[in-house]
Amino acid sequence: MAVAGATGYAGGEILRLLLGHPEVEIGVVSAGASAGSRLGEHQPHLVPLADRVVTDSSVQTLRGHDVVFLALPHGASAQVAAELDPDTVVIDCGADFRLLDAAAWEQFYGTPHAGTWPYGLPELPGQREKLAGTRRIAVPGCYPTTGTLALLPAVTAGLIDPADVVIVAASGPSGAGRSLKRHLLGAELMGSASAYGVGGVHRHTPELVQNLTACGGSGVAVSFTPMLVPMSRGILATCSAPVRDAGLTTEQAHRAYLDAYADEPFVHVLPAGHWPQTQAVLGSNAVHVQVAVDPAAGRLIAVAALDNLTKGTAGGAIQCMNLALGLPEALGLSTVGVAP
Amino acid sequence: MAVAGATGYAGGEILRLLLGHPEVEIGVVSAGASAGSRLGEHQPHLVPLADRVVTDSSVQTLRGHDVVFLALPHGASAQVAAELDPDTVVIDCGADFRLLDAAAWEQFYGTPHAGTWPYGLPELPGQREKLAGTRRIAVPGCYPTTGTLALLPAVTAGLIDPADVVIVAASGPSGAGRSLKRHLLGAELMGSASAYGVGGVHRHTPELVQNLTACGGSGVAVSFTPMLVPMSRGILATCSAPVRDAGLTTEQAHRAYLDAYADEPFVHVLPAGHWPQTQAVLGSNAVHVQVAVDPAAGRLIAVAALDNLTKGTAGGAIQCMNLALGLPEALGLSTVGVAP
Amino acid sequence: MAVAGATGYAGGEILRLLLGHPEVEIGVVSAGASAGSRLGEHQPHLVPLADRVVTDSSVQTLRGHDVVFLALPHGASAQVAAELDPDTVVIDCGADFRLLDAAAWEQFYGTPHAGTWPYGLPELPGQREKLAGTRRIAVPGCYPTTGTLALLPAVTAGLIDPADVVIVAASGPSGAGRSLKRHLLGAELMGSASAYGVGGVHRHTPELVQNLTACGGSGVAVSFTPMLVPMSRGILATCSAPVRDAGLTTEQAHRAYLDAYADEPFVHVLPAGHWPQTQAVLGSNAVHVQVAVDPAAGRLIAVAALDNLTKGTAGGAIQCMNLALGLPEALGLSTVGVAP
Amino acid sequence: MAVAGATGYAGGEILRLLLGHPEVEIGVVSAGASAGSRLGEHQPHLVPLADRVVTDSSVQTLRGHDVVFLALPHGASAQVAAELDPDTVVIDCGADFRLLDAAAWEQFYGTPHAGTWPYGLPELPGQREKLAGTRRIAVPGCYPTTGTLALLPAVTAGLIDPADVVIVAASGPSGAGRSLKRHLLGAELMGSASAYGVGGVHRHTPELVQNLTACGGSGVAVSFTPMLVPMSRGILATCSAPVRDAGLTTEQAHRAYLDAYADEPFVHVLPAGHWPQTQAVLGSNAVHVQVAVDPAAGRLIAVAALDNLTKGTAGGAIQCMNLALGLPEALGLSTVGVAP
Repeated sequence: MAVAGATGYAGGEILRLLLGHPEVEIGVVSAGASAGSRLGEHQPHLVPLADRVVTDSSVQTLRGHDVVFLALPHGASAQVAAELDPDTVVIDCGADFRLLDAAAWEQFYGTPHAGTWPYGLPELPGQREKLAGTRRIAVPGCYPTTGTLALLPAVTAGLIDPADVVIVAASGPSGAGRSLKRHLLGAELMGSASAYGVGGVHRHTPELVQNLTACGGSGVAVSFTPMLVPMSRGILATCSAPVRDAGLTTEQAHRAYLDAYADEPFVHVLPAGHWPQTQAVLGSNAVHVQVAVDPAAGRLIAVAALDNLTKGTAGGAIQCMNLALGLPEALGLSTVGVAP
Repeated sequence: MAVAGATGYAGGEILRLLLGHPEVEIGVVSAGASAGSRLGEHQPHLVPLADRVVTDSSVQTLRGHDVVFLALPHGASAQVAAELDPDTVVIDCGADFRLLDAAAWEQFYGTPHAGTWPYGLPELPGQREKLAGTRRIAVPGCYPTTGTLALLPAVTAGLIDPADVVIVAASGPSGAGRSLKRHLLGAELMGSASAYGVGGVHRHTPELVQNLTACGGSGVAVSFTPMLVPMSRGILATCSAPVRDAGLTTEQAHRAYLDAYADEPFVHVLPAGHWPQTQAVLGSNAVHVQVAVDPAAGRLIAVAALDNLTKGTAGGAIQCMNLALGLPEALGLSTVGVAP
Repeated sequence: MAVAGATGYAGGEILRLLLGHPEVEIGVVSAGASAGSRLGEHQPHLVPLADRVVTDSSVQTLRGHDVVFLALPHGASAQVAAELDPDTVVIDCGADFRLLDAAAWEQFYGTPHAGTWPYGLPELPGQREKLAGTRRIAVPGCYPTTGTLALLPAVTAGLIDPADVVIVAASGPSGAGRSLKRHLLGAELMGSASAYGVGGVHRHTPELVQNLTACGGSGVAVSFTPMLVPMSRGILATCSAPVRDAGLTTEQAHRAYLDAYADEPFVHVLPAGHWPQTQAVLGSNAVHVQVAVDPAAGRLIAVAALDNLTKGTAGGAIQCMNLALGLPEALGLSTVGVAP
Repeated sequence: MAVAGATGYAGGEILRLLLGHPEVEIGVVSAGASAGSRLGEHQPHLVPLADRVVTDSSVQTLRGHDVVFLALPHGASAQVAAELDPDTVVIDCGADFRLLDAAAWEQFYGTPHAGTWPYGLPELPGQREKLAGTRRIAVPGCYPTTGTLALLPAVTAGLIDPADVVIVAASGPSGAGRSLKRHLLGAELMGSASAYGVGGVHRHTPELVQNLTACGGSGVAVSFTPMLVPMSRGILATCSAPVRDAGLTTEQAHRAYLDAYADEPFVHVLPAGHWPQTQAVLGSNAVHVQVAVDPAAGRLIAVAALDNLTKGTAGGAIQCMNLALGLPEALGLSTVGVAP
């Protein structure tokens, strides 16, 4: 396994999980500007890899691995991927190959569409099968994974009208990567909650629409608002949509969720009356989900929590790697969070 | 001025603000279980009051003040208020007298309705006038203040359909008071976001409906979901509703907001492109608001930030006190937050 | 394996680690007041154990296990332990059996001394051998583990005078347990650092003296000051003492530390110029250590970081369990932290 | 009043406090790279100044004000100050003019010594008089203010031997300024405590030595270790030194502290048994101090808490401005913190 972008947050999390995976050997760890330094300078938590020397992210260094993880800035993956052997499993944690719709890509990213790879969310209907044996995987965005898993049973069971979905999601700043931006400074974030990307402009919006459509929704429209809250990791998404049947009860919705996720290894529908908290999934590949129906408002509300770096990025990537390689899907991944 | 419940968070904040108010003298500070102790043991930040002895909250100790602030648990205010002189300004920070609708009260609080006092949100249409000279004030809940001020211009200007309002609000735990509950422990809260009161069951829901109705909305329905995030203070509310006119632009909405709040001393509509952050209003009576229209989702999204203990409770209370006493409305209150 | 006190923080962490241990089966999970409830209500992060029913902590329920972990309040372990079979491995995470000196026990704890068990810090000179095959283990306090491992090489190599040790350690509140105390509320902790137990009165002081004496120090005296800082987990201890040789350099001290810990599986001396951060050890059994000499002040300063719940409690307990059972010492334990 | 460096944290805090000062008018607000932008883009909490246009920091724009605050990077103040009128009160929040000892300056800062201005810590013996009417003020570093005020009474009363002072101080990252550095990113700081500048190399060390010497200490040596903890603001310093008299009691030390600070407007010695917490001084100019004697360790331990941006920088600056202008020393400054 090679990891390109090993000095960032996503790359570090991939390496953390690979260190606990029984069937992998970590090969090249690469990064752009930091080539030549020791990995321990950038990722002091990865003690067993502290003395690894970071290489550059050229195709030459990445070649010759069975699996290459790309944790690169948006737009950088296409060229690297094109030069890697077609038999290499290439897992892109960036956005480049997530969208089916070239027009949506261009609208939200402003660059030509690079193409579409199999979408790395095995929980989507029929998607697990498409990922088995594939050699190219587009890892979903962290918000789309959260919002999709929150609403999937409601859409597949036809409980809601997906034309008026509202998603408000709180995230820690690690989802924005290790970039030196003023609004990501600790002094600005601690003790503060803030909204950003409001009004349908966040790039994860078309991905949410695509996923809910893949669940069987027609005419899907999503109002998505992300916010930053003071925690390193974690996403909590509150998602709602009008119920189709005014008589739908919370118990019925909860039952539909239990049924839909009965066989999913990582999605855990909480018992009635308990609501997700991100702490409970920290560092794990688990997603905690709960649902309620508000008859006065006529909406079903589903809440999901996951760790944006684990199930939201690196854990999801390894789950897909397992499928691509024919390994047990949950190998090397945990449902146990680090709490409190 | 007397403050009943002086050892809690709301009571402490009232005292903090009264210490900076040029026209008040702080009289009795009272609390139930802590009577006889020094205030400094409970509120070490209130240095000038450190040696004040906390009295019990009986009517005997509270009598004889021009203004009595009640920062007591829900249900405790009615009896105290009944025995205070009708000429005393009584400002209740609890919920007892907020709701007009006795049935809604009983549904959400499960006890008989104590009555309705003038509602302490001067920004509501016509409300400032009702508060001038009143002797009884029901201070709004912190979430209703935030959500109402986020959406007020959109409702009064008829921009949205208030029958499908969705509000998701992140709050720090000080809004829950100084109660010894497991989910309020620091170890459970830090590094974690969690939802609670989901599905239309939070007690602030009917108050939000009442307020948006008072803004002129008809058939108001609100799906309200609160969440706890790791910061001591602050609320960030993301509020949305369907636009009435599919062609409404963000610029038009922003202009309507600027117009609606042009004369408000504490509501600050941010310049285009800037979104509220709770840090910017910390400790102040300011509310920061911004709005956008998402044409694909057909919704207007408004975000508001305030400090739940200041404008959300104690600052709002003192703003109303100023109106009741005929003082300048903004006296002793600030729009300057403590940041970073 | 049985865990008594399974609904607290230490008990939860033991269970988290046992879930990842290849050689254990989790038996009874018990707690006092919560008997009869599902474990998932208390520890939502332990998904695989969500449906386990919590039993009472009586000897009857704990009997019949090869290993019993006691994560009980101070003073509660002695009686339970006395009634368990002598062949059962009993691992006490409380303080009852840590101290050799009955007088020190009585001075700091105010109750009769229950006795002394083998002390569960394998890194102490000669201690690993004493733990092999033992059936009773007293898990060290979290601060003593941190401070001892910070200074051990300096004491064993005779670099410092242990008669004037100063330790100041910042900790998250999970070390104080899941108790409902006002100063542990999130609203009081977030955004705040505070000192407590100042002036030699904290109960971990005699344990620090005992440990540094066990490292070969004579006339040991420790000024220990703990503080609470806003993070759920982690301890960062800054420890210093006068150097014996005024010419000692940082390089020499660093070399002594590398030598002393060369074979330790969990203590990681950082490369020159890098200083510990608790994030890097979160959830892991690793301890990160660094050292410097300040010639102007004539002191050696060592800093150590660990996770108070892992290496500081539950991980240390399992490390000792491995030794007691003759398993590889590091089995089921990780040196990889969860960061950022 | 003009503020140079108005877009940084220190500059923002100066402006925040000036907005509440009854005797000042805010003139030019300047900054280097941001000239031409609105202040509201950088300091959204300063609502009344939101529309001010930031100018460049040239002498031309700063001239013509009675008072000029310099909140510039180290090394930038000397040239600006040299060109300002000698009658202008120039208050430098940087380090350039703090140290008396040119050799110490060059050792720690590596540049030629610019000179020495009256040191802005009125609590130092005799210093208040030196600041009255002065036209140049060097505002102390935030750590030196904290450590000095923690130990001042112990040194002036001869209770301790200042040759073996140990100071360990936890700070929020706002003290490091608004610089885009990786270790200041929120994701790295939240949930983590870390040490830095260990071993006598932090630039505030010689300033601490200078101050304790000014308190009457001879042969002062200070081992100073700073750490970063997850809060935006605040410093908590734990300071200790050997007692001169082995029989000194905590009560005697506490009495000496009460006496020493009896007339100080901003230093508050807490009642016996209460220890400082930074939350209690947040946003205020107060310093909370407590002291204990540890007879077993033979050391006196003093703990101080302050807000690094207020009393530690901007509040201290304004306190000195008041003295320089002949205004009441406490004018426009508060001892009331924003808590919780």
